[in-house]
Amino acid sequence: MTDVSILGTGLMGAAMARVLLRNGYSVTVWNRSPAKASHLKREGAVIASSATEAITASPLVFFVILSYDNVRALLTDALEHRDIGDVVNVVTGSPTEADELEAWTRENGITLLDGALLTYPKGIGRDDTVVLYSGDEGAWRRNETMLRGLAGGSQYLGHQARLANAVDHVSLSFVSIVQTAMLSTLAYAQVLGVPREQAVARMHRSLTNMKGYLDYALPMVDSGDFSATESTIDTWALSTRDFARGWRDAGLSGKAIAAAAETVRGAQEAGLGQFDLAAVYQFELGQADSSS
Amino acid sequence: MTDVSILGTGLMGAAMARVLLRNGYSVTVWNRSPAKASHLKREGAVIASSATEAITASPLVFFVILSYDNVRALLTDALEHRDIGDVVNVVTGSPTEADELEAWTRENGITLLDGALLTYPKGIGRDDTVVLYSGDEGAWRRNETMLRGLAGGSQYLGHQARLANAVDHVSLSFVSIVQTAMLSTLAYAQVLGVPREQAVARMHRSLTNMKGYLDYALPMVDSGDFSATESTIDTWALSTRDFARGWRDAGLSGKAIAAAAETVRGAQEAGLGQFDLAAVYQFELGQADSSS
Repeated sequence: MTDVSILGTGLMGAAMARVLLRNGYSVTVWNRSPAKASHLKREGAVIASSATEAITASPLVFFVILSYDNVRALLTDALEHRDIGDVVNVVTGSPTEADELEAWTRENGITLLDGALLTYPKGIGRDDTVVLYSGDEGAWRRNETMLRGLAGGSQYLGHQARLANAVDHVSLSFVSIVQTAMLSTLAYAQVLGVPREQAVARMHRSLTNMKGYLDYALPMVDSGDFSATESTIDTWALSTRDFARGWRDAGLSGKAIAAAAETVRGAQEAGLGQFDLAAVYQFELGQADSSS
Repeated sequence: MTDVSILGTGLMGAAMARVLLRNGYSVTVWNRSPAKASHLKREGAVIASSATEAITASPLVFFVILSYDNVRALLTDALEHRDIGDVVNVVTGSPTEADELEAWTRENGITLLDGALLTYPKGIGRDDTVVLYSGDEGAWRRNETMLRGLAGGSQYLGHQARLANAVDHVSLSFVSIVQTAMLSTLAYAQVLGVPREQAVARMHRSLTNMKGYLDYALPMVDSGDFSATESTIDTWALSTRDFARGWRDAGLSGKAIAAAAETVRGAQEAGLGQFDLAAVYQFELGQADSSS
């Protein structure tokens, strides 16, 4: 037996194996393309000849591979041989897939921690790196020391396996939207002849102010009272429509601003025009309710 | 003659009139609905009985009304009577409208400063409030002291009248996109069962990190070298597609994340898949070029 097994030795899996070895654990690794795992032998890892061998070699098994489907397939093969230890899955994928894997592992007597790596490979082993875990609380407690060695800022979010994945989705969706919007906005500024430093200065200032916006909007979101004090959805519907027209005039596709304008208009058409912009939250939730 | 005239005494125009009076200037005001201007009489303003009277009463005339078209109509009426002083226009509208007003004022011998108020009425008169101006440099120099009294952080951006409006569009487009995305993301978190404080903490952290993202992306944008070092457009195309599916699974319209996913996919289809996400800038610019 080794202390821990890692299935998948791409950039992330290899970084994890190295840190675990450095932290004094014995490590078994496996990769679908064996060549990608072999370089870890020199660094002290045991190379498993099959996924099942890796899965059954340690009381803790990390999956750092491409899809939830693959995790289930590899575990299914291993189930025929013997009991399986704690499974930690850090495959990306969706909250729904996390739900499905949780149900399946429970049926098969496997303890599952589902994880979300909010880091690049170079962040593994650092004190301030955050990895989120959710699922079986015993698995978290048994392995907490080892997991904090991989990422000092690791957090256990609760017993629903989907939680880590859900936070990851929420966080990275937001990052994707904002980063893409920044790049598109820089292009808009360029076409309009706005000096780069002006555009950057305004975006920097906006990002700072946006934290204040959260503080301003959250009490409304939490209370459900969206009475307007600063400006209304009607006003924002007009201005975002004008902005979207500006992007089109400039020849840009303007998908980000068009999406914002459509969302605000949707809230307006739903009768929320007299409320604060924060009522977009209510509008979005209402859509989810009506679709369920 | 008074020192300055203000056309339009809504919340913003009235705030400007009050600060100018407090700063020792004599002020003429006019409003389409006279009742909305009359309360300023008690505070020392001269009430003009017509727009033309207000326009011809002072060497500096502020327009704080609803549309560029109205500015032009009111100036056209006044032109028949006598010369018009410096015009400062802070109407919202688009960069194209600023171009058109600039051309028209030039033809008619009027000096124009176009302004963008990056503030709410309560910010008028404060040292740190930013109002951007662009257009006639002489008009800026002649009136700089008065303008800085209205907003201490006022800036003159250059002789093209559209510049202030363009910076305003860029800045507020970005704010609209991010604020709306925040509210939608909070709804997504709610539907997924992510605790509010987790969602807020991740967004706060993302907003901080995003400043670093600008520093990371700008050298690529400035140099045109988008060689990938951290992750590629191909990778982002996959993850944003997954995120967009997550929002749909949750029953949300997900316009913001769908727009991000479509933009990244567009860049991928344009052959930029192997480059850094920052190449979205290049992709957007290319669209503007091909449409012009």
